[in-house]
Amino acid sequence: MAEGEVVKNKQVIFKGYVTEFPKQSDMLINTENPIKLKIPEGSNGVLVKNLYLSCDPYMRLRMNSPDKNSGSYFSSFEPGSPITGFGVSKTVDSGNPNFKKGDLVWGVTGWEEYSLLASTDFFFKIEHLDVPLSYYTGLLGMPGMTAYAGFFEMMGCYVVGSAGSKDKVDLLKNTFGFDEAFNYKEEHDLAGALKRYFPEGIDIYFENVGGKMLDAVLLNMRIHGQIAVCGMISQYNLAKPEGVHNLMSIIYKRIRIEGFVVTDYYHLYSNKFLDTVLPYIREGKITYVEDTVEGLESGPGGLIGLFSGNNIGKQVVFIAHE
Amino acid sequence: MAEGEVVKNKQVIFKGYVTEFPKQSDMLINTENPIKLKIPEGSNGVLVKNLYLSCDPYMRLRMNSPDKNSGSYFSSFEPGSPITGFGVSKTVDSGNPNFKKGDLVWGVTGWEEYSLLASTDFFFKIEHLDVPLSYYTGLLGMPGMTAYAGFFEMMGCYVVGSAGSKDKVDLLKNTFGFDEAFNYKEEHDLAGALKRYFPEGIDIYFENVGGKMLDAVLLNMRIHGQIAVCGMISQYNLAKPEGVHNLMSIIYKRIRIEGFVVTDYYHLYSNKFLDTVLPYIREGKITYVEDTVEGLESGPGGLIGLFSGNNIGKQVVFIAHE
Repeated sequence: MAEGEVVKNKQVIFKGYVTEFPKQSDMLINTENPIKLKIPEGSNGVLVKNLYLSCDPYMRLRMNSPDKNSGSYFSSFEPGSPITGFGVSKTVDSGNPNFKKGDLVWGVTGWEEYSLLASTDFFFKIEHLDVPLSYYTGLLGMPGMTAYAGFFEMMGCYVVGSAGSKDKVDLLKNTFGFDEAFNYKEEHDLAGALKRYFPEGIDIYFENVGGKMLDAVLLNMRIHGQIAVCGMISQYNLAKPEGVHNLMSIIYKRIRIEGFVVTDYYHLYSNKFLDTVLPYIREGKITYVEDTVEGLESGPGGLIGLFSGNNIGKQVVFIAHE
Repeated sequence: MAEGEVVKNKQVIFKGYVTEFPKQSDMLINTENPIKLKIPEGSNGVLVKNLYLSCDPYMRLRMNSPDKNSGSYFSSFEPGSPITGFGVSKTVDSGNPNFKKGDLVWGVTGWEEYSLLASTDFFFKIEHLDVPLSYYTGLLGMPGMTAYAGFFEMMGCYVVGSAGSKDKVDLLKNTFGFDEAFNYKEEHDLAGALKRYFPEGIDIYFENVGGKMLDAVLLNMRIHGQIAVCGMISQYNLAKPEGVHNLMSIIYKRIRIEGFVVTDYYHLYSNKFLDTVLPYIREGKITYVEDTVEGLESGPGGLIGLFSGNNIGKQVVFIAHE
């Protein structure tokens, strides 16, 4: 491509608001949208070529109507426009002094080949290139930073994981080094399962599930236990969230529950987070698994697969080489 | 009475476990139980004459079967034995060096004229006698200490109360100095009512209600709002607690929820709490209202009335003068 050239910009378009389980047909691929590979005169935006896109559960919430998202942290996707989400991109042209042509960045971009981004508030320049670029959609991006923000003093714990298949349970125990793990789809009595793994109760629960799992956890918390809450994936496809019943445990166990969103911790990214995690990656101390589909056309399937647990590892959409 | 005399000790006996709304007939008055007004040889217990008994919502939970109370902070009442609860009492005889004959105390005692108490772990000697003794069942007892533990940095807030009758709402606004108050029984849309009183959201919620009120509050919390939880009275008479649905607000608003039980704060009672509250009482800066019934026979009705909101002010049962 040449600078200033007009090209066709393949896009994943959001068709309309979703009420329950999302389908691939809630999105369509548009191959006809032209884009000029230069920022408009006087713009301080950034034009990027998207390399990797990240499939994350919170994206389901952005498929809700604005009505259902009122009071939410998330705005709704715009019907008729491309889906947006976290991605790794390369700067093609820039009116912003913080990003220059050729810079690799991660942040919220469009599900399309090229994106012209007006806001770079939540954009990070990628400074460390000795790790795979795709890691900046996961381990070194928003999800990794979320784990860090929720848990940065958790090293050394006895850790039990919950996953939805035997393969994933094996992965947690044998590859990721979890002390124990169980398949929640095979446990008819979740509270009983937790009791089995935590006979003396749970000190820390990282809440990403909600609903029945939260109810079971509340019954099994230890006195003065803590729950960090940043997601409730089991609820995202329900027209109305399930009721959680065991909230009296909050009193009995003097539980502290605290919600957080990763953007509140972005100031820790470049120093504390990367300083902690990069050496572990370089020394081979972190095992990380990605599940990659290729091409924007495969994006909707990858995204929707999250809600059936199809992916094993971080779901990434590969779009283009640098 | 003479020391060592054997008298008939009128008692309120707990008949059996309760599943939903409690009735007076779940308790009976026994007038035939004899008690010797002297502690047994070698005992380090305390024998007290009960003067005031306190009716508190948590007592409903102790009417549940041990099965339903498993994992709870509360043990179940013993069918066939007297109900127990907070009260103000006078020491008649003592084998415990911390309490001597004539001492006035508050703590957990029996619903009976005289109680022989093996444990005085949670007993406080009443040192300040220039305020009404009955205050040690409420404002200067467990409930007041609970309010303090949940909220000791709350002075100066804009405060909105919720109550179940017009008279109580008037009391909150005109006598207790609440900025606003509303009758939750007349609000069909609790979330809308809260929005009316907190257009910019709620910073602090003192959770004593649970269920639908908590759901409405969650929708109206402000970012980084805090919820102190020490009771959920709306749930106590239900066979199964209601579901709470709006827990995603915990994330969106980065809410902190923390449960507490007053006994964890008892070490603050004699110094910080009394030092703060007693001067306010003496200077007439605290308005306090009691609703008193007379005699042990009236105790069950007073206790059960809590759950229909019959009482206006702290429900006390007057048993005897010193």
